[in-house]
Amino acid sequence: MQQPLQRGAGDCHGQPAGGPAAGPAAARPGREPGPVRPATVFLSPGPTAVPDEVRAACARQVVLHRSREFDQVSGFVLEGLRRLFRTEGRVVVFPCSGTGALEAAVVNTLSPGDRVLAVVMGLFGDRFAAIAEAYGLEVDRLEIPWGQVPTVEQVVERLRSARPGAVFLTHSETSTGALLPLDRLVPAIREAAPETLVLVDMVSSFAAVPVAMDAWGIDVAVTGSQKALMTPPGLGIVALGPRALEAVERARLPRFTWDLRPYLAGGGDFPYTPAVTLWFGLKAALERIAAEGEENVYRRHRLLSAMVRAGVRALGLEPLVRDEDASPTVTAVMLPEGIRPAKVIRRLQDEHGVVVVSAQGHLKDRAFRIGHMGAVAPAEVRAGMAALDAVLAPMLAGAGHGPVPGSAAAAAEAVRAAAAGSSGADAPARAAGVGR
Amino acid sequence: MQQPLQRGAGDCHGQPAGGPAAGPAAARPGREPGPVRPATVFLSPGPTAVPDEVRAACARQVVLHRSREFDQVSGFVLEGLRRLFRTEGRVVVFPCSGTGALEAAVVNTLSPGDRVLAVVMGLFGDRFAAIAEAYGLEVDRLEIPWGQVPTVEQVVERLRSARPGAVFLTHSETSTGALLPLDRLVPAIREAAPETLVLVDMVSSFAAVPVAMDAWGIDVAVTGSQKALMTPPGLGIVALGPRALEAVERARLPRFTWDLRPYLAGGGDFPYTPAVTLWFGLKAALERIAAEGEENVYRRHRLLSAMVRAGVRALGLEPLVRDEDASPTVTAVMLPEGIRPAKVIRRLQDEHGVVVVSAQGHLKDRAFRIGHMGAVAPAEVRAGMAALDAVLAPMLAGAGHGPVPGSAAAAAEAVRAAAAGSSGADAPARAAGVGR
Repeated sequence: MQQPLQRGAGDCHGQPAGGPAAGPAAARPGREPGPVRPATVFLSPGPTAVPDEVRAACARQVVLHRSREFDQVSGFVLEGLRRLFRTEGRVVVFPCSGTGALEAAVVNTLSPGDRVLAVVMGLFGDRFAAIAEAYGLEVDRLEIPWGQVPTVEQVVERLRSARPGAVFLTHSETSTGALLPLDRLVPAIREAAPETLVLVDMVSSFAAVPVAMDAWGIDVAVTGSQKALMTPPGLGIVALGPRALEAVERARLPRFTWDLRPYLAGGGDFPYTPAVTLWFGLKAALERIAAEGEENVYRRHRLLSAMVRAGVRALGLEPLVRDEDASPTVTAVMLPEGIRPAKVIRRLQDEHGVVVVSAQGHLKDRAFRIGHMGAVAPAEVRAGMAALDAVLAPMLAGAGHGPVPGSAAAAAEAVRAAAAGSSGADAPARAAGVGR
Repeated sequence: MQQPLQRGAGDCHGQPAGGPAAGPAAARPGREPGPVRPATVFLSPGPTAVPDEVRAACARQVVLHRSREFDQVSGFVLEGLRRLFRTEGRVVVFPCSGTGALEAAVVNTLSPGDRVLAVVMGLFGDRFAAIAEAYGLEVDRLEIPWGQVPTVEQVVERLRSARPGAVFLTHSETSTGALLPLDRLVPAIREAAPETLVLVDMVSSFAAVPVAMDAWGIDVAVTGSQKALMTPPGLGIVALGPRALEAVERARLPRFTWDLRPYLAGGGDFPYTPAVTLWFGLKAALERIAAEGEENVYRRHRLLSAMVRAGVRALGLEPLVRDEDASPTVTAVMLPEGIRPAKVIRRLQDEHGVVVVSAQGHLKDRAFRIGHMGAVAPAEVRAGMAALDAVLAPMLAGAGHGPVPGSAAAAAEAVRAAAAGSSGADAPARAAGVGR
């Protein structure tokens, strides 16, 4: 079944009255009556905009987590996640952040004295490594300049010399917008170091970029509810292949709340109270992904990324990451001398209702990040690009970088139109008015 | 400001259409059209029924967690929680279960080699102890028979001989319904062992039973969103007094996600994505508590407990816990030989829409538990007692224990009426129709 993404979530974002799921309590705090404010276009790399039906599901009354009713919800969700991970293994969902789920991956597979090779391409790769260090593990960091990805050979060579118990990878590095080619990298790692476990942070790629956990040889994959899964933050997700399930039994790092064993034992009962309403939301989100069609979801994310990249280039700006390594979910945009990212971000939000976020680490004052994952339609990216035109063209000219070569909105629209024209598969999307 | 509890949440519990916050997605999974089913009366010890306005708040669109908008929400929530804890210290809210928050309390205050005295009155006291053991700490368990509480002298004596680094207490033991007298116990502990940190599990007491963290000398208190705070599960809450804040700096157990230091540093920024929609819900719940009046909330919970205890006794049954030690939030009811708790629970739910839960551990086949915390009105407890009458009177008679001495509903109503008659403060509740 295919059904194109309907706009909606982004449109009502920030409007006091909200959608059908929102009562008077949905009014934004501190928002005084005043001039009409623009509807929010939420281009955040997480949390991302939550579609109306997911919000409505999150508003359902709670049920007992040890009940037939909740068993049906959790069964549906776990099966849907396994399908998206492409694994015959097991999936466990914790009430936690993505970071918590990464910690769960570490403490359930490793033991004191284990060595880890961490491929660090940015802030989140660094965090993954820091978790292992917090438990006293010896971590060898393969530091890649922010915005780049390592070659397969780089990783394999380091692996051969280090012989670690596990390698940590970040699929989509949210701080830079770089994407690791897992399809080539993981099989090469498995061949070069057959005993090494492969743990992958998929927080900002899962459900936006296709993965094939079992086919590629990934042992543990981690994600969260609040990115391309379009659900409010609060669920951390860990998927485990067969070798990881064995490692869980052997691991000797201290663990209690993160301990996967009670989740994996028997019928999958919950040892501690799960965040039931977020599970309701995640179920609705998975239904939405199934309705749009998984391949269409992936295609849409590639399109959104291409629109953003064409848009910023039309303004004479450059994404941090080159095309070949670009994540379909988030783009860091470099700004030239004299243009302060904080000011761009504030003006986009205050004057145009477009939410983008700052870059991180040493890029904080040199770049900003545009998220384009989850419930984002091409029209929203185009609206974001139109706001970029309005804010950045005069700023660039004023700082001596103008006039800008073109229009971000026009360039983004050209990409969208070309994609729609080149593919019969996009006909349903056109018919439904996506990208109007 | 005082405003009596309005019924509502319990009434729409389980009805397919749901309240104003629920769209079509709120229909229960697997519920086929058929005969009219009773509205659910949700007497669960957690998760508890979520009031409509809290559900609506949870359905709000997400916002960036690093934003002025969310700062206002988190500031309100943290201040409201500090007020309820009666502490001048700090409060941190994690996206996690109550168990996760207990683990955070342990790893942030203790170090390898530390000894712990754990007062174990049931399943949750046992879990608290098990967390410390998972980290290799030496735990001395003061095991109290289920359903009882220790005397102050028992704890103090054991403390004097053990000289532990910390003592673990469970305020309301959810598995038995016993309540520790913290007001007498904690000052005695602090006097007998001035160097010992006092860590208290308040998961099923907070916001239902008054506490005075600073005045009594509690160093760390832990609770969760899904009990008397009337919010969906997914938020774990840790409150820290001044000695605990010092301990956080010294502690040397491994910690990453639970590490309180980044939360406590500087302006209280969030190191990892918080569960923003559950924070919206918790804000609405705290507003509801303020509207009802904190003292009225505590009084209502005492009334609900007295109604339940009178009700079950009218059937010739006995609560597990004697009156002096009874928790105002949950009551375990012992069943006589020949009456299977699972059957009672199933019939209450299927025939009367009344949700109660099984007992735990060795009591699983001898008792069931009635939760009466959070958004529960006296009328709902009375409805639950009427269902008990309908289910248990014939079962007891059939098993040779009848005829029962009286009616649970009538006894519960008599308690309510007496309380309403004896106190002018209940006049507003009567005027608003609570307990009709």
